[in-house]
Amino acid sequence: MTHEIAVIPGDGIGREVTPAAVDVLEALEIDFEFVEADAGDAVREETGEALPQETYDLAASADATLFGAAGDTAADVILPLRTAVDSFVNVRPAKAYPGIDAVRPETDLVFLRENTEGVYAGHEDRLTQDVSTLTRVVTESASERLAEFACEYVDGDDHDGFSIVHKANVMRETDGLFRDTVTSVADEHGVETDQVLMDAFATRVCLDPEQFDVVVCPNLAGDVLSDLAAGLVGGLGLLPSANVGPDRALFEPVHGTAPDIAGQGIANPAATIVSAAMLLEYLGYDEESAAVHEAVEATLENGPRTPDLGGDASTADVTAAIIDRL
Amino acid sequence: MTHEIAVIPGDGIGREVTPAAVDVLEALEIDFEFVEADAGDAVREETGEALPQETYDLAASADATLFGAAGDTAADVILPLRTAVDSFVNVRPAKAYPGIDAVRPETDLVFLRENTEGVYAGHEDRLTQDVSTLTRVVTESASERLAEFACEYVDGDDHDGFSIVHKANVMRETDGLFRDTVTSVADEHGVETDQVLMDAFATRVCLDPEQFDVVVCPNLAGDVLSDLAAGLVGGLGLLPSANVGPDRALFEPVHGTAPDIAGQGIANPAATIVSAAMLLEYLGYDEESAAVHEAVEATLENGPRTPDLGGDASTADVTAAIIDRL
Ligand SMILES: CC(C)[C@H](C(=O)O)[C@@H](O)C(=O)O
Ligand SMILES: CC(C)[C@H](C(=O)O)[C@@H](O)C(=O)O
Repeated sequence: MTHEIAVIPGDGIGREVTPAAVDVLEALEIDFEFVEADAGDAVREETGEALPQETYDLAASADATLFGAAGDTAADVILPLRTAVDSFVNVRPAKAYPGIDAVRPETDLVFLRENTEGVYAGHEDRLTQDVSTLTRVVTESASERLAEFACEYVDGDDHDGFSIVHKANVMRETDGLFRDTVTSVADEHGVETDQVLMDAFATRVCLDPEQFDVVVCPNLAGDVLSDLAAGLVGGLGLLPSANVGPDRALFEPVHGTAPDIAGQGIANPAATIVSAAMLLEYLGYDEESAAVHEAVEATLENGPRTPDLGGDASTADVTAAIIDRL
Repeated sequence: MTHEIAVIPGDGIGREVTPAAVDVLEALEIDFEFVEADAGDAVREETGEALPQETYDLAASADATLFGAAGDTAADVILPLRTAVDSFVNVRPAKAYPGIDAVRPETDLVFLRENTEGVYAGHEDRLTQDVSTLTRVVTESASERLAEFACEYVDGDDHDGFSIVHKANVMRETDGLFRDTVTSVADEHGVETDQVLMDAFATRVCLDPEQFDVVVCPNLAGDVLSDLAAGLVGGLGLLPSANVGPDRALFEPVHGTAPDIAGQGIANPAATIVSAAMLLEYLGYDEESAAVHEAVEATLENGPRTPDLGGDASTADVTAAIIDRL
């Protein structure tokens, strides 16, 4: 069976790390058909549109999408692309790698971030010269779907349940609905949960990240808290993510376009290659996925390394080393 | 001139640390009249109301209020009390103290958090069985008032300007209004600003807190990011805060009721005593305020210390040591 993979490099180092991840996927004996498409600042410059309709349609029909990064147009690209794959959950592992400088090397978290609503579904209005509003949306159905996913997620691996992180002491109706819905789905599945206010989570995860494992949270909370966790493990540079929908999914590194080093061939491809490993797992290639994860870890630990990690290797060197270790 | 100070100990260790701070204030030669009032879980148990009208009225008329902590009723107590003093800004310093274990000892930040609106002014609705909404409010006037305060704040001390932290790439109208209003007030005052997305801030402040100094942000962003900074400096235990309004203000430690140690006389009074130092500064007693700050710092560094900092001193011992050092 051929899997159609949409490849959307985007801008900046996205154009360097996405081909690197494709090279890794091509090195495996899997029948992939890669179809490339444009998105981001560069294509907007040319055509006026950050996300051309063909690109949207491609992501909406491919079996999986690999996305790099977009510049100023990031929100105009990634938010519709999440919709294109009907993604209801953003899976964001934040793990410190051995040998990599981290504020909290013991961090090993996975965020399951609601990916369709909250302030992201926000309808905004400028009511008067003085007053603007945004209507934040939380639904029982989206919370349920996320919770079902979370229960399956913690069931598969050796997790003890998950933490529900929210701000229901202030957003009583909306985050209250989120918290109660997720809790009751977990109860039905016999999955243990605990509840943490998002501000308290921010403090506690710095003090002792090991007290958390899988974190289930609303959209904006997941955005901020997973980036906080990224800070604890040493930056966005190594973090992958998966936007999972019922029939397809989109995989992207958490980092941006890194304009300071773009075009030099020295971008660290690890986050995108690990995102490709998540893609492999999503398509059922668990062994190949594990092999890529291991090859990346071995390369992070033993080199070669790109300059962001203190080395002087190129993107191509690191990619070749990872492929060698497969 | 007599200053009327409302004293609201609340619950848990609030009942221990608030009197300690009053002792420190009483040790100064200032004409204070302290008036105590109830709020929190205990008074709700008794009367059905977490915030009795008398307490609200007292805070709304006193020159300043010192608040301890409240338990489950925290939101029902602190949010109306912020309204009672018409507080438009929550000032939250997050500084690591010498000799105290911190994830990031070089952290020295002050958050100026919008204190009246955002999701906290949220009107919530359960539209259908499935759908709940919260209307987030951002006004030009509140953003302006905050920005004016911020400009004065950075002018007084040796700050180079401030960072505006927001999520205007997603909340374009509301956080866009916030960002643009604060920026243009700063421009008028010739105050330098830079802009940081709140998720990027979360990563960057972990990696290198010294790149930030004064942070101006919307209400919920300030809640979460100041608690993140608290994690970087070693926990909530030492952090003070001021809810400042045009005519009065309320001062409170950032920590909660610490039910695990409440009633044992071993709570660390530092955060509340530093909050009292902020109260002194607010009322114009700059020298006395500086003296209290220094006495607390000296005590944190040289002891005696409460058990949370590895010592075995009581709240009373630490308070006495601070008063001795005034
Ligand atoms: C670019 C932006 C819209 C996006 C988000 O807020 O979700 C990004 O921060 C992310 O986390 O993928
Ligand atoms: C208790 C709660 C409502 C409050 C807030 O969210 O503002 C607290 O977290 C704080 O930061 O003072």
